[in-house]
Formats: sequence, C-alpha cells, structure tokens
Amino acid sequence: MRTVDWHDNAVRLIDQRRLPGRFEQPIFRDYREVARAITEMVVRGAPAIGATAAFGLVLAGFQSRATDRAQLLRDLEEAAAVLRQARPTAVNLGWALERVLRVAVNEDLDTADDVRQALLAEAQKLADEDVALNQRMGAHGATLVEEGDTILHHCNTGALAAVDFGTALGVVFAVHAQGKRIHVLVDETRPRLQGARLTAWELKQAGVSFDLISDTAAGYFMRQGQVNLCLVGADRVAANGDVANKIGTYQIAVLAKENGVPFYAVVPTSTVDLSLAHGDQIPIEERGADEVLDIQVKGERATPDRITARNPAFDVTPNRYLTAIVTENGIVRPPYIKSLARAVRNELGQ
Amino acid sequence: MRTVDWHDNAVRLIDQRRLPGRFEQPIFRDYREVARAITEMVVRGAPAIGATAAFGLVLAGFQSRATDRAQLLRDLEEAAAVLRQARPTAVNLGWALERVLRVAVNEDLDTADDVRQALLAEAQKLADEDVALNQRMGAHGATLVEEGDTILHHCNTGALAAVDFGTALGVVFAVHAQGKRIHVLVDETRPRLQGARLTAWELKQAGVSFDLISDTAAGYFMRQGQVNLCLVGADRVAANGDVANKIGTYQIAVLAKENGVPFYAVVPTSTVDLSLAHGDQIPIEERGADEVLDIQVKGERATPDRITARNPAFDVTPNRYLTAIVTENGIVRPPYIKSLARAVRNELGQ
Repeated sequence: MRTVDWHDNAVRLIDQRRLPGRFEQPIFRDYREVARAITEMVVRGAPAIGATAAFGLVLAGFQSRATDRAQLLRDLEEAAAVLRQARPTAVNLGWALERVLRVAVNEDLDTADDVRQALLAEAQKLADEDVALNQRMGAHGATLVEEGDTILHHCNTGALAAVDFGTALGVVFAVHAQGKRIHVLVDETRPRLQGARLTAWELKQAGVSFDLISDTAAGYFMRQGQVNLCLVGADRVAANGDVANKIGTYQIAVLAKENGVPFYAVVPTSTVDLSLAHGDQIPIEERGADEVLDIQVKGERATPDRITARNPAFDVTPNRYLTAIVTENGIVRPPYIKSLARAVRNELGQ
Repeated sequence: MRTVDWHDNAVRLIDQRRLPGRFEQPIFRDYREVARAITEMVVRGAPAIGATAAFGLVLAGFQSRATDRAQLLRDLEEAAAVLRQARPTAVNLGWALERVLRVAVNEDLDTADDVRQALLAEAQKLADEDVALNQRMGAHGATLVEEGDTILHHCNTGALAAVDFGTALGVVFAVHAQGKRIHVLVDETRPRLQGARLTAWELKQAGVSFDLISDTAAGYFMRQGQVNLCLVGADRVAANGDVANKIGTYQIAVLAKENGVPFYAVVPTSTVDLSLAHGDQIPIEERGADEVLDIQVKGERATPDRITARNPAFDVTPNRYLTAIVTENGIVRPPYIKSLARAVRNELGQ
C-alpha cells in the first residue's frame, strides 16, 4: 500500500491527517486539489511530497484539453508553478517537478498524448525508484545500529513519509528485518504529532519495540545514557551538510552532541540542494497558530481562547551536530562540502 | 484568590486540571483526599504543594479525635507520612510538613486544641510568607530583565504554582508591573501542558504579551537570536546547584548555553535541599503513560491503541548550565556550593 499512487487515472493518497484513527485513501482528480492536499498535509514527508507533486503534474497533463504539444507544455508549466508553491521547505517537491517536466520537453515526443504517457511513465519510475533507494538507504544505515541499541526518532520518516519503506524509519525496519533486537523512543513531535500518530502506528504494525515520549523527555533519556543513536530524516540539506528538518530536530542534535550520542540524518540525494551554500538559506515555513492551539485532553481544549502562537514547522541543524548523513549511495561523513556532492553524483564507491 | 487556603475549617484548592476551561475551587475535608489531590495534580508547583501539605496536616489535626496532646501528635505523624508520599520530587512538601510538625511538638502547648490552633497559625504564616517571599524574588529577578527582552518560560511558575504571585513568572509579573515592555515565549510543556493551560491563562489575565510555542520550537527561537533569557522554577535544588524541575528544563538549559542565552532558575530557599550533594540524588517521579497517550486533536485521539509510553515528570539540570539562581534572599552565582548555603542562611547581603 503506497502513500501515493496513480489509480484509475487519478492521484490516490493515504490521508495522514486521519491516522491512526481511520485509514482513508481519497482520490484526487484535479491537480489544484493535489497541491492543496500537500499544503494541508494530507500527505507529508519530503520524498512523499515529491512523488505526489510528480503525479499531480501527470494529472494536470491528463486534465489539459491541449491537442498540441506546445499548448500542453504551457499548461504543464502553469500546473508546476501551482504545485511548486504548495510548501516551501522540502526541496523534493521542486526536484520531482523538474524531473518530470524535463521528460515532457523531450523533442522525441510528437503528440500531446505521447507527452502524457511519458509523464506518467516518469512519475511511476520516480515512485518505484523512491522505494528501491529507501531500501538501499536502510541497508547502509543498518550498519550503524547494533544489537540492543535504543534509537531516538523524531517526526515520521517511515513508509508514510515516502512512497514506501521510509528513510530514517527505513533504517529501523531494515535493522528489525535483520533480526537485531532494538528499541525506539518515539518523540511525539508537536505540534502535528507525526511521531505519536504515524510513527507509533507504523512501528506497532511492524512489531518493532518502542515507547512514545513527550518531546520534552528526549534530553532526559540521553542524559540517562539510555539512547545509543538518533535517527531523523530531512526536508532539505544544503551543500555544506546543514539540515532542515521537522521543528525540534535542532534541539535533539544539540542534546545528542552534548551527551556524546551519534546523530544521523537519513536522506535520499534528491533532498540535497547543492545550490544552497548553507542551511540558513533554506526557506522555513511558518504554519498557522491553530496547529499549536487546537489541542484537547480528555475532550477539553487545553489552551485559553484568543491567544496567539508561533509555529515554525522546520528548523535548521548546523552540520557540526551531525555524525554522518546516510544516503542511498552510502554514508556521507564530514567535511560534507565535498562528500555530499560526491554522494549526489554517486561517487562514494560504497 | 489563593491557589490554596484554609476555608470553612477545610482546605480549599483551585482545581488546576480544569483550567483554562473552568475555574473550580473544591473543598477538602479529609487529609487523605488532600494527599490524593497532590498526587493527581489538582494542585502542582513546588511552593503550592508545600503549602497544601501544610494545610493538609492542619486538617489532619482537626480530623483527629485525640483529646490529649500525645495522641494528637501520633495522629499528626501518621498523617504527615501519608502526605509526604503524595509526590516524591518537590522538596517543599517535606519541608512544609517538617516546619508545621515542629510547631506541634512545642512543649509550651498544653492541650490538643492548643496544638491545633498553633498548627493552623503556622500554616497560615507559611502561606503568607510564600506570597511575600515570591514578591521579593520577583524584585531580585526583575534586575536581570531589560526593556524589550523576550523571555522563554517553561511549565507554570505563576500564582498557581505557589500560594500566589509565583516564582519565575513572579519575575515576569514584577517586570511588567515596572512598566518594562517584555514578551514571553510560553513552552506548552508536554505532557501536562502547564504552559499551554496555566501560564497562558495567567499571562493573558495579567495583560503580558506572549506567544505559545511547542516544546519543539524553543531551540529554534534561541538559535534565531529571538530569546534574551530563560526563566524556570524548580522542584528541588541540590547543594551544588543542580536543579530538578519539570521535564524539558534540562533541554532548554543546554540549548541556552549553546546559544549564549542566560538561563535562570527562580527558587525560594525552601526548594533548596542542602542534604543532597548533587542533583542525581534527587528522586525523579515517573508518572502514568496515559498523560502522554491521552491527547486529542479535533476531537480524535492522536495515538494508536495499546501502545506504551515513558513519562518522567522531572529532569535534572546540572549546575554548569545555570547562569544564576534567583532566591528571595538575592541572586546566587557560581560556585553554588558556597553561595546557595549562604542564601539559605540569608547571608548574601543583597
């Protein structure tokens, strides 16, 4: 069951806002609705957003009434601009759109329908590759985990954050499949609770041992010596190895360094943005205050009426806090400025 | 309106579990119920717990059918043992019980009723002193805050955490009363959400400018240079200045140090436990998993059924992360091993 797929000439998503209570797979027949689904976090996770945008562009191609190639390309450019604006931080969104658009402009395609079929084939290929490279990432990352380790994990980076399998949680699944006994401390990841809702749901299904913890407790367990390593994903990695990821990642990285706990980002190379010299150039989305304010305990709202909140959705972790970055092409170690570029070109030789 | 007071020959509390939705003041006529109210966090905050335990012991005195002094003292010892076990971390609980018990054993008291009246007078005095010393603490702490500062605050340390006025938030109230323009970033403080529920409620009422933030965002704002100082309370301070406080405090302290942001604990000397050499001797309460698991968004439970959680309620911040400790007797600076003892003896000369 993929997070995003092409189904009955439309885009099908798992509605992640409904989990863990309900498993629903809405169908989208308008690319603008796909863009809105990304904005509203029906689907989230950098690789999943990328694949969804790719299929959204395919949908735009099928929606277009263009009969000639030139008109179709204009319609696709317009749709790509809409999809690109759905969320600002994850670079996979723009990366996937560029990749699919590049196929559309291939001069060997004669008719509009040829272009439509080529777009669909490319989006399918991108989605299939996502699953395969996540498995390679899982295998590389698994070499960093030992029998008996306790892993601290932030946000959701599992099958739901990608097309399937996942990034940081893919490492956990790979280690679990090897039969190594491990335990995961799952940060609940306020405000959207991707850890409590999604990671807990995935680990429970996979039969991996875990405990949910409040985000406030991560440092406690590290200081107690109860965490062997931290695994997170990323939404964009700058050329120097600075990592933008879900809000709270920076804190965990600082605490990991302070406590001598290895901290790894698990990241497909499609998430690396070599055009940005450092992480503070990465655009950080600030989302609505309601995500912070709308929280209930025992059925009662836990915040006073008419107050304000700040809600940055991501933060930047400077490269000095990372022990290494795991990619599908191997494990990238400092200095990242050279090794990351080699990983993107698949020249690590791992 | 005090968090705890003696009303109609019984203990009256503000039920902090109902705030901000409802303001209720249940009456307790059995000291065992007072102990349970402490355990279940009807009342919380180290100074408030201390005063509540003191009035609980007074209640036990009035409940006792003893007609002679010796029997009453035995009943009081039994009640004190029950109250002492209500929660383990805040030292104020034991401190307040000892202080009130000390009056009971005063040889100058002839009859059981003399003892009862002396107990009540001492508990009232303790409560009144709490308010007065919080105001002194506020005045000392206010010297650390400048016009235009943004203060990061964790948990609740306001009027609700004490008999009235508060500790760290007392500093905020003092600064606000001086007319200095300040802004507070209020950590929501999972899992019990004391920041979101109680601190937001108190600051809104006081007209202090603030934004609620997820616990995951504290480091982001520090790294952005948007935090000028951090203020927290404490549940127990060891002789060397290590501070046990609400879970998540340690993380904030580490992040503050990493970002060059001053970090202050605001602490009455009744919270200092000179009998403990360092913070890792402080007992840390681990509370039920439901506090982490029972969370709803838009009316739906955000965690899967039948999963487990870890829920340490406090953590220890080693003294090296603290810039200073603010007490009612003045501001205590490193090395704490000497200065804290002088503060407890009120020999700081401030």
